[in-house]
Amino acid sequence: MTDTIGVGLIGTGYMGKCHALAWTSVKSVFGSGPRPRRIHLAEANIDLARQRADEFGFERATADWRELINNPNVDVVSITTPNAFHAEMAIAALEAGKHVWCEKPMAVGFAEAQRMEAAARASGKVAILGYNYIQNPLIRQMEELIASGAIGTVNHVRVEMDEDFMADPEALFYWKSEASSGYGALDDFAVHPLSLLQVLFGNPTRVFAHQSKPYADRPLEDGSRRLVETFDIASVLFEIDEISGVLTVNRSAWGRKGRIALQIFGSAGSLVYDQERMNELQLYRATGPSTAQGYQTILSAPAHKPYDRFIPAPGHGLGFNDLKVIECHELLQTIGGQKGRVIDFANGLEIERTVHAMAQSHEEAGWVTIG
Amino acid sequence: MTDTIGVGLIGTGYMGKCHALAWTSVKSVFGSGPRPRRIHLAEANIDLARQRADEFGFERATADWRELINNPNVDVVSITTPNAFHAEMAIAALEAGKHVWCEKPMAVGFAEAQRMEAAARASGKVAILGYNYIQNPLIRQMEELIASGAIGTVNHVRVEMDEDFMADPEALFYWKSEASSGYGALDDFAVHPLSLLQVLFGNPTRVFAHQSKPYADRPLEDGSRRLVETFDIASVLFEIDEISGVLTVNRSAWGRKGRIALQIFGSAGSLVYDQERMNELQLYRATGPSTAQGYQTILSAPAHKPYDRFIPAPGHGLGFNDLKVIECHELLQTIGGQKGRVIDFANGLEIERTVHAMAQSHEEAGWVTIG
Amino acid sequence: MTDTIGVGLIGTGYMGKCHALAWTSVKSVFGSGPRPRRIHLAEANIDLARQRADEFGFERATADWRELINNPNVDVVSITTPNAFHAEMAIAALEAGKHVWCEKPMAVGFAEAQRMEAAARASGKVAILGYNYIQNPLIRQMEELIASGAIGTVNHVRVEMDEDFMADPEALFYWKSEASSGYGALDDFAVHPLSLLQVLFGNPTRVFAHQSKPYADRPLEDGSRRLVETFDIASVLFEIDEISGVLTVNRSAWGRKGRIALQIFGSAGSLVYDQERMNELQLYRATGPSTAQGYQTILSAPAHKPYDRFIPAPGHGLGFNDLKVIECHELLQTIGGQKGRVIDFANGLEIERTVHAMAQSHEEAGWVTIG
Amino acid sequence: MTDTIGVGLIGTGYMGKCHALAWTSVKSVFGSGPRPRRIHLAEANIDLARQRADEFGFERATADWRELINNPNVDVVSITTPNAFHAEMAIAALEAGKHVWCEKPMAVGFAEAQRMEAAARASGKVAILGYNYIQNPLIRQMEELIASGAIGTVNHVRVEMDEDFMADPEALFYWKSEASSGYGALDDFAVHPLSLLQVLFGNPTRVFAHQSKPYADRPLEDGSRRLVETFDIASVLFEIDEISGVLTVNRSAWGRKGRIALQIFGSAGSLVYDQERMNELQLYRATGPSTAQGYQTILSAPAHKPYDRFIPAPGHGLGFNDLKVIECHELLQTIGGQKGRVIDFANGLEIERTVHAMAQSHEEAGWVTIG
Repeated sequence: MTDTIGVGLIGTGYMGKCHALAWTSVKSVFGSGPRPRRIHLAEANIDLARQRADEFGFERATADWRELINNPNVDVVSITTPNAFHAEMAIAALEAGKHVWCEKPMAVGFAEAQRMEAAARASGKVAILGYNYIQNPLIRQMEELIASGAIGTVNHVRVEMDEDFMADPEALFYWKSEASSGYGALDDFAVHPLSLLQVLFGNPTRVFAHQSKPYADRPLEDGSRRLVETFDIASVLFEIDEISGVLTVNRSAWGRKGRIALQIFGSAGSLVYDQERMNELQLYRATGPSTAQGYQTILSAPAHKPYDRFIPAPGHGLGFNDLKVIECHELLQTIGGQKGRVIDFANGLEIERTVHAMAQSHEEAGWVTIG
Repeated sequence: MTDTIGVGLIGTGYMGKCHALAWTSVKSVFGSGPRPRRIHLAEANIDLARQRADEFGFERATADWRELINNPNVDVVSITTPNAFHAEMAIAALEAGKHVWCEKPMAVGFAEAQRMEAAARASGKVAILGYNYIQNPLIRQMEELIASGAIGTVNHVRVEMDEDFMADPEALFYWKSEASSGYGALDDFAVHPLSLLQVLFGNPTRVFAHQSKPYADRPLEDGSRRLVETFDIASVLFEIDEISGVLTVNRSAWGRKGRIALQIFGSAGSLVYDQERMNELQLYRATGPSTAQGYQTILSAPAHKPYDRFIPAPGHGLGFNDLKVIECHELLQTIGGQKGRVIDFANGLEIERTVHAMAQSHEEAGWVTIG
Repeated sequence: MTDTIGVGLIGTGYMGKCHALAWTSVKSVFGSGPRPRRIHLAEANIDLARQRADEFGFERATADWRELINNPNVDVVSITTPNAFHAEMAIAALEAGKHVWCEKPMAVGFAEAQRMEAAARASGKVAILGYNYIQNPLIRQMEELIASGAIGTVNHVRVEMDEDFMADPEALFYWKSEASSGYGALDDFAVHPLSLLQVLFGNPTRVFAHQSKPYADRPLEDGSRRLVETFDIASVLFEIDEISGVLTVNRSAWGRKGRIALQIFGSAGSLVYDQERMNELQLYRATGPSTAQGYQTILSAPAHKPYDRFIPAPGHGLGFNDLKVIECHELLQTIGGQKGRVIDFANGLEIERTVHAMAQSHEEAGWVTIG
Repeated sequence: MTDTIGVGLIGTGYMGKCHALAWTSVKSVFGSGPRPRRIHLAEANIDLARQRADEFGFERATADWRELINNPNVDVVSITTPNAFHAEMAIAALEAGKHVWCEKPMAVGFAEAQRMEAAARASGKVAILGYNYIQNPLIRQMEELIASGAIGTVNHVRVEMDEDFMADPEALFYWKSEASSGYGALDDFAVHPLSLLQVLFGNPTRVFAHQSKPYADRPLEDGSRRLVETFDIASVLFEIDEISGVLTVNRSAWGRKGRIALQIFGSAGSLVYDQERMNELQLYRATGPSTAQGYQTILSAPAHKPYDRFIPAPGHGLGFNDLKVIECHELLQTIGGQKGRVIDFANGLEIERTVHAMAQSHEEAGWVTIG
């Protein structure tokens, strides 16, 4: 009989449900590893906590997350609350001897992120961040293609992340337009492309960013308007050693729903990817007859591990939630002592460092060198 | 506390795992409905049965499927064994008072399918078939667009289903090339497009089919070659009342991995869909200025129910396995006495009837009228 | 100094202008071959004839096409009038010792087409039909890929041709809905896909067709409605020796503007093409690692002859009218005694034969074997 | 009878032929305007000059371009020689009282461009640059959509131009890698996107650029290697008043053949375009039901003027060379005293100014404000 691992879940919104689904199905998908036992669920409102515990199959519900953290049957804690709570909860969980799976971004400020990383280091526990896009088997395939030299030496990269949930200028002002929420698109979105860059190439060594506001103000409920304090758009030139790159993010981009577009150019070919078609990868190789060159559209398939754990047939398609299941499996592997494909707090801190350097470069209107 | 429903699973291959995953996560995804309790799992080999029961979280394992069917704690039985076993198992389960969720195709012969349908009728239990493609929220959206008149009166339909798992002429001869397995692509593939047609328009009223063999023979392990007895390709002209249509299926179609392509033409617009891009729907409406007409690419979104139960953000993408979760939910709804979106044995029998009429039309080289 | 060739043009509508543009630029594009001298232009209305002669750079204008045909300076005659005039004009031109470049379809009835072919044979002159889609360098590339075995032995083909110029059910009844204009989509559209099939594989040896009317009647100017006599939709099963195929044509297909879609499946790969993206060709080859297979999108390029005569850079794109320039060049090559890539009257007659066999199969509701 | 205009052509390479084809067919395509009379052709080598004159239908050939410029029958001169000759030839032609159609980029240095602009102003003649991409009917359609408010107020723009003719690191060093040829991709490519931006929004008001070299050196014929002096890649942040933007150009981008990709975001929608699919425009409008939103793919059509002058049917496709014919027509309109859609030397100078400001910002590693 399989070993079990006790799970606690704090927060039950968008990502909370996504974590719950991952804990629910990871064992059935992968077959191996411990069986997650859904022990304790925390949600600010106790009635909602109970309802979600029932839906998600958790044994106990609480409105006090500290109770969950102190539950001796809980081995690992999913933290999916608003960003402002990440540091306090993660540090408390680590200090209580729990492994931590915390959603991105790491924290609101860099100092907080540093404290989180220090706590993780001190604890000896596994502490990772929810950067699920790196888990796409096709991103792994890109990594392998690059490592195998399929496109030669990479020299230029472009990354875009765009959605339109803030594109309506007449949508009511809410907390994402307040300065207290952070810079705007830079920490809301840029961290995702940075997680992909980190996995594929490492962290930027030099950045130059510019942020902009598509809308100066937004309406309040009383009909008056309030000035927008955050930047919905950010554009960044960067370097990762010899690689030059451009990163652009826009959360007011009408028409884009979940676009994370990568263009990677090398000395022998190129790779193109868009998260909105997450089961397709474009590969160009500068080989073969001149009459028959062109981008190949590779559909995700069992050959792209661990797609095969979900479906034995090619071209049938994984979904967004499946990426979280893979992330969960990698976390369990790491907890089990194996090398998992995860962004731990140390690596996550580098992403935060980069974001803050970008904001600084915007302020200074000049390049900022990192590290 | 939620009610539970006892689940039995027979077969743990491709579709067996898919059912297991659906039973595992349906409650967490939908929140409502009874909680499936994974009671009993049957697999021909007892060791494999035990391993899968552990992986999939079933309480008991057996190599004797009749034991599972007689387990009083089992309320509903998933049948995912090879087609030849469907009739015997489904009828036994129904007679034992269980609800049945049987994978497609219904049975090897039409008489068997008829007996299954009769057993379902006699039992008063819910008996449905695993036609998961109809569960795609975008297929439901197509249905609503058609019903709302968005493309006017439909007059012409084209459907294609193509994969390439039998495209290699040097792959070893196996059971799918034996006459005992059925006609070939006609019953292996055509049933899926027919399930989509049934949901959208009803069953064909007249068919003319032609089948062909891309490869006359295939190699055996000893190096000799054996004549192929089934047809990997079938092309069909059909009518559904006033609608004319073409259906083509090919399981030797190099490059196609999970293509189910629909083209639906109406008096005011058209719809285009391909399962390989299952999160996209193309809609053309003959309205607006002549300078700005063209197909709209609609990405799946929370507005397309029940996508919202999986992800609250648009354009993030469902996967193939999510369709089975929706099917599972529709089954539970039906068991609970509500109208579910399912293909029950009565409707499934109509699909079988159509397939056999197609084969007959091939034999007779003429149109066959149905019903 | 280059030799010249005297050109006459009958008809100045859609295709008349297209021929004029081809005659105007063919020498500049290809560099080689005789210089076309635009001698004589005929158009039913003399004022329009004069205007077009001025615009298109022809030396003389006439309302009497026989005058043009008898002009001793005219060596080759472009016939771009309505189909009903093709036979009379082409035969007269051939008998007058002129080469003939006649637009498709060849003629209204098969007997007329036969007389045209006989006249061409008797004349010893070059007589070709305007099947310009075969001139696309990417179609030529498909031909070369197939001939070189890049996709193995072809076993299945699908062809579609769809436009929406007759898709509006409330558009006024006009001559294309009258029986005197022919069958409908079968002779209006099917001849184009047949020209492509002929070049790539040869002529169908057996056909089964079904035609349908999306709209039973259409409005007249006085507000009453008239029954439609032609079929806007036709669907055909066919065989070309060992190849099975499906051809569907629809001139009431909302959203389709110039779709001619080809899917060609072979034992080692497949090819996919759509005229709406006439500068792209999809090639799938069943080779290489399982992780990196997929359709390659080949953009038209100088390597695809004679693209290089138009543009020295790849991916910049040819247009529809450029195909006519290539056709004109192939005609001049043929007149000059070289083997041109053209559909002459003998080959065109085979296309007509196939179309009439399709109509016959519809009538008889059974297969019709050809030749 | 139509008036004529005497044409001189200097240079007969890639763009020289493109001009020749435009002069040849512009009258036949547009019907209106003067008939171009191909008078005089100049090419460095007299034999080649004679051959090209014969091919392109010019009356006289010369190896001395000054002879052409002094030919009293020549009214307008096409200048398609290497960039280094543009200034001298254009100024001489203008001073000789000729209209000038000069290929881009304007000149090698900014001072030269200024002298050209001054000469044009002083001459009172029409002097335009060959920025043909602005002539695409779909670019005109974008302009009209933006002007009509279809996508609201534009707030963010991304432009990319990529080809791969310098992507091979082992291709021999040639003049484009020499500093004397200019900055590299910045003046080779960036001018094209800038011409599109100018037409759609005006000139950048502030720029920050970074250039990079994918390959430090390239081989010489003797097997040794020479350091590359120009930048094949440039990335630019810019502002056009309230619009923020990113422009990236790369002439070493494996797989890209003629990509000029535009993404334009506004407060009510967005537009997406790629020159590699020059007959398609993507339009997103934030209107209608939430279930049926998505990018519309608009195919070029007669409704997009002057597509209708080439082809009366939609979706059949213009080619790259057709853009030059439209440009030629706009030039003739301008010469005729009407407002043509052209980039004259004054506007072209602004493009040059922007490019030099970009290079300066790279040097200074800071923003450069323009104008």
